[in-house]
Amino acid sequence: MKIGHVEIGGNKVVTMAGPCSVESPEQIEQCAEIAAKGGAQVLRGGAFKPRSSPYSFQGLGEEGLKLMRAAADRNGLLMVSEVMDSTQIPLLCEYSDILQLGARNMQNFNLLRAVGQVRKPVLLKRGIAATIEELLLAAEYVMSGGNYEVILCERGIRTFETYTRNTMDIAAIPVVKKLSHLPIIGDPSHGTGRRDMVLPMARAAVAAGADGLIVEVHPDPDHAMSDGAQTITPEQFYEMMHKVRAVANAVGRIA
Amino acid sequence: MKIGHVEIGGNKVVTMAGPCSVESPEQIEQCAEIAAKGGAQVLRGGAFKPRSSPYSFQGLGEEGLKLMRAAADRNGLLMVSEVMDSTQIPLLCEYSDILQLGARNMQNFNLLRAVGQVRKPVLLKRGIAATIEELLLAAEYVMSGGNYEVILCERGIRTFETYTRNTMDIAAIPVVKKLSHLPIIGDPSHGTGRRDMVLPMARAAVAAGADGLIVEVHPDPDHAMSDGAQTITPEQFYEMMHKVRAVANAVGRIA
Amino acid sequence: MKIGHVEIGGNKVVTMAGPCSVESPEQIEQCAEIAAKGGAQVLRGGAFKPRSSPYSFQGLGEEGLKLMRAAADRNGLLMVSEVMDSTQIPLLCEYSDILQLGARNMQNFNLLRAVGQVRKPVLLKRGIAATIEELLLAAEYVMSGGNYEVILCERGIRTFETYTRNTMDIAAIPVVKKLSHLPIIGDPSHGTGRRDMVLPMARAAVAAGADGLIVEVHPDPDHAMSDGAQTITPEQFYEMMHKVRAVANAVGRIA
Amino acid sequence: MKIGHVEIGGNKVVTMAGPCSVESPEQIEQCAEIAAKGGAQVLRGGAFKPRSSPYSFQGLGEEGLKLMRAAADRNGLLMVSEVMDSTQIPLLCEYSDILQLGARNMQNFNLLRAVGQVRKPVLLKRGIAATIEELLLAAEYVMSGGNYEVILCERGIRTFETYTRNTMDIAAIPVVKKLSHLPIIGDPSHGTGRRDMVLPMARAAVAAGADGLIVEVHPDPDHAMSDGAQTITPEQFYEMMHKVRAVANAVGRIA
Repeated sequence: MKIGHVEIGGNKVVTMAGPCSVESPEQIEQCAEIAAKGGAQVLRGGAFKPRSSPYSFQGLGEEGLKLMRAAADRNGLLMVSEVMDSTQIPLLCEYSDILQLGARNMQNFNLLRAVGQVRKPVLLKRGIAATIEELLLAAEYVMSGGNYEVILCERGIRTFETYTRNTMDIAAIPVVKKLSHLPIIGDPSHGTGRRDMVLPMARAAVAAGADGLIVEVHPDPDHAMSDGAQTITPEQFYEMMHKVRAVANAVGRIA
Repeated sequence: MKIGHVEIGGNKVVTMAGPCSVESPEQIEQCAEIAAKGGAQVLRGGAFKPRSSPYSFQGLGEEGLKLMRAAADRNGLLMVSEVMDSTQIPLLCEYSDILQLGARNMQNFNLLRAVGQVRKPVLLKRGIAATIEELLLAAEYVMSGGNYEVILCERGIRTFETYTRNTMDIAAIPVVKKLSHLPIIGDPSHGTGRRDMVLPMARAAVAAGADGLIVEVHPDPDHAMSDGAQTITPEQFYEMMHKVRAVANAVGRIA
Repeated sequence: MKIGHVEIGGNKVVTMAGPCSVESPEQIEQCAEIAAKGGAQVLRGGAFKPRSSPYSFQGLGEEGLKLMRAAADRNGLLMVSEVMDSTQIPLLCEYSDILQLGARNMQNFNLLRAVGQVRKPVLLKRGIAATIEELLLAAEYVMSGGNYEVILCERGIRTFETYTRNTMDIAAIPVVKKLSHLPIIGDPSHGTGRRDMVLPMARAAVAAGADGLIVEVHPDPDHAMSDGAQTITPEQFYEMMHKVRAVANAVGRIA
Repeated sequence: MKIGHVEIGGNKVVTMAGPCSVESPEQIEQCAEIAAKGGAQVLRGGAFKPRSSPYSFQGLGEEGLKLMRAAADRNGLLMVSEVMDSTQIPLLCEYSDILQLGARNMQNFNLLRAVGQVRKPVLLKRGIAATIEELLLAAEYVMSGGNYEVILCERGIRTFETYTRNTMDIAAIPVVKKLSHLPIIGDPSHGTGRRDMVLPMARAAVAAGADGLIVEVHPDPDHAMSDGAQTITPEQFYEMMHKVRAVANAVGRIA
């Protein structure tokens, strides 16, 4: 699968990095610079941020997408952002190179069908209570509409363990590689919910065969407007990129 | 909460019964007759049926809603049907007395907000990996728009147990009654996924304080177009209504 | 199954009540009086209390068993207490009418075999991660030694829900009744971990067909040496017994 | 921690390999040769094999331990075998270099205390429903008796996912490394229950910081008397050892 000059599912391990939410022109520009400097290919970031509570920050909307597009372009990056609802598809298609479907929408079948009608790559995240089989069936929904460019993402499932926010099911990566031709990436930020666990789990995901990583990075994570606890600092990001590269090489890939 | 002449959350245990999907004029009429004869107050049934696989029966759409409305009216019943997407809200509002939000949409925050803008009661089902707290926060999303008529529904969570399709978290019923003023009903059909477990779990839900039940019943469950394994026969439904009544009385309610 | 004058698995719903741990002569005597006054048939209590941390109170040992036997006899009750290890079997057999195997020992196959060799009824609690099938196979271990008097107990499984300590799988009760001839009782104290949830879940268990209940009661739960948060007061116990009786009658049983 | 000439928890990633059960003199000798040839330091194997069903093969007992000791010695390997019950401790101490405590005994506190009294290293496996905190507290039980040589083992937890037998919680490895000074190894055989997933999960465990691996290998896995589906062939074992070495180097370790 080729998106612009970036191949996903090939020999190279691809990295998507950026903030949970687009917060301001300065913040997204800094994030894009950090992502590019660390060697990422794709800038991630959310413009629509519905949260568990209706009273929290809900994102910058279209303005956020514009800022993100500009920051990605200035830094030679592709861009991925989440589509929450089928009415947002045209807007997301205008700005974003990859449409993200979040874990909570993995079985929103109307939305899956709708993104199946467009011709933009889709990043489909596993639901927190979804089996691997259900993840693959959700991808079928998108592909049955003719959109075959689906990237899967393991981002942790809900179990009784509470030390980490979710339990990252690393085995889902080789299982998907075995059952399907689709690329799969790992999300150690949501997968663990803890900044200090991002590096070891990024290494584990790549060692298990992941085609890429998606991580939350922010110039000042402790003041991020969302997901700060699982967002790494620029220094941690550079270290992670460096250390993941060695693991990628060890499994015959480049990163 | 009063919907037409039916009070929910009062002393009377309310029953919602009907097929998983509206299949034909004859089928929905028969279902409505069975529901009314057994003493149910509300006819349930789905017109839009996105399924785990994109290649299964997907429902009759608006035609199904029309057939269901007519069958409900002829039998003196209210009607509840699921809204999958915010674009379907006007259509559902035209036909249905109660808008159902399915388990997979419990954290579809755009849809929660959208149903918060209308003035129709909402039946909000717990997500299969949602905590009780998240269920209550989802209800907050609807209510923050000014729509206060939210009925919660416990319909089973996903655990390692495989004999039943889900694990019905009966304790969620008294926990919700303690933490909130909202009514809560139990769904022993989805809660167990097994026809033979509907009766005991309906009794358990009412014994634990449920304000109502929602069950799948069909004149010929083995030939139902969806969810047959968990759908009870008319005879099982009458027996259930009879036996649940005794339990309701034992906990100081009527049914 | 008859133990002394008490039948388990018959028409009558049996109640086992008492403290988590035997703490002193006065405490266990009071507990036995409360249990008898409320209408229980069996006094429960632990003499060996290994805890998650090695630094907590570990039980009174044989002295506790003696005190408990005397208190049970004075109040016309049977007695059930836990055996932790095969070396304790002779001691437990000397004092207790029923040998309890705890959730953590449900797959301690050596211990299962060992209790299969004695001729004392066994109360076998479901492991917190055990499937219903594994519970039935564990009972097979006991019975394969010739000890057929096995009572099963549903006491909650571990899930992602955190408001309750465990998720009480009420459906396990009718499932066991369907798959097996063995009696099964419910433990709403461990099943929920919350004093305020014991009553509704006791009702639910009986409504679903439980042959009995086992509950923790203490004259002063807030000062109990273990499990205080899930232990009910004498008043709550009397109320529970009264209210459960009505539910038992509603499902054609007596209590 | 040094056991003979083998250091565990140091820079070198240690491998324990062998069959699920000791079956015959030829089989255990072949397994030991394979383990040594592949570069493992420790021979694993069970002599007491209580199984979920009481009617399956239950192990060779002391004869198995003798055979295993001889095979380990002939091939310059240490040996680890499971102790099921405190009465077996003297026997296991006589033959085995490391005492394994299985997942089902992780909270068998009497057994934990008993192995705390001996001076043999203990391999403590995480229970399938145990939190990381409970695993660390179980190790405290052993250490509170003065036996400080405890090696922890992540071997998968029980979740709703059914494609793999368990969900290997790779994050437990870096979490334990952060919270404790104890070494931790990964068990990709039990962690996945699938032969084809052993290699990627072995790599992932080492990439995440595991101090070692324990794997099931058998000259003819399809005819193994237990656990065949998750047991790798000699060729798969040699390949795994080779490929894990590269990952170990990539994270600054040797293997």
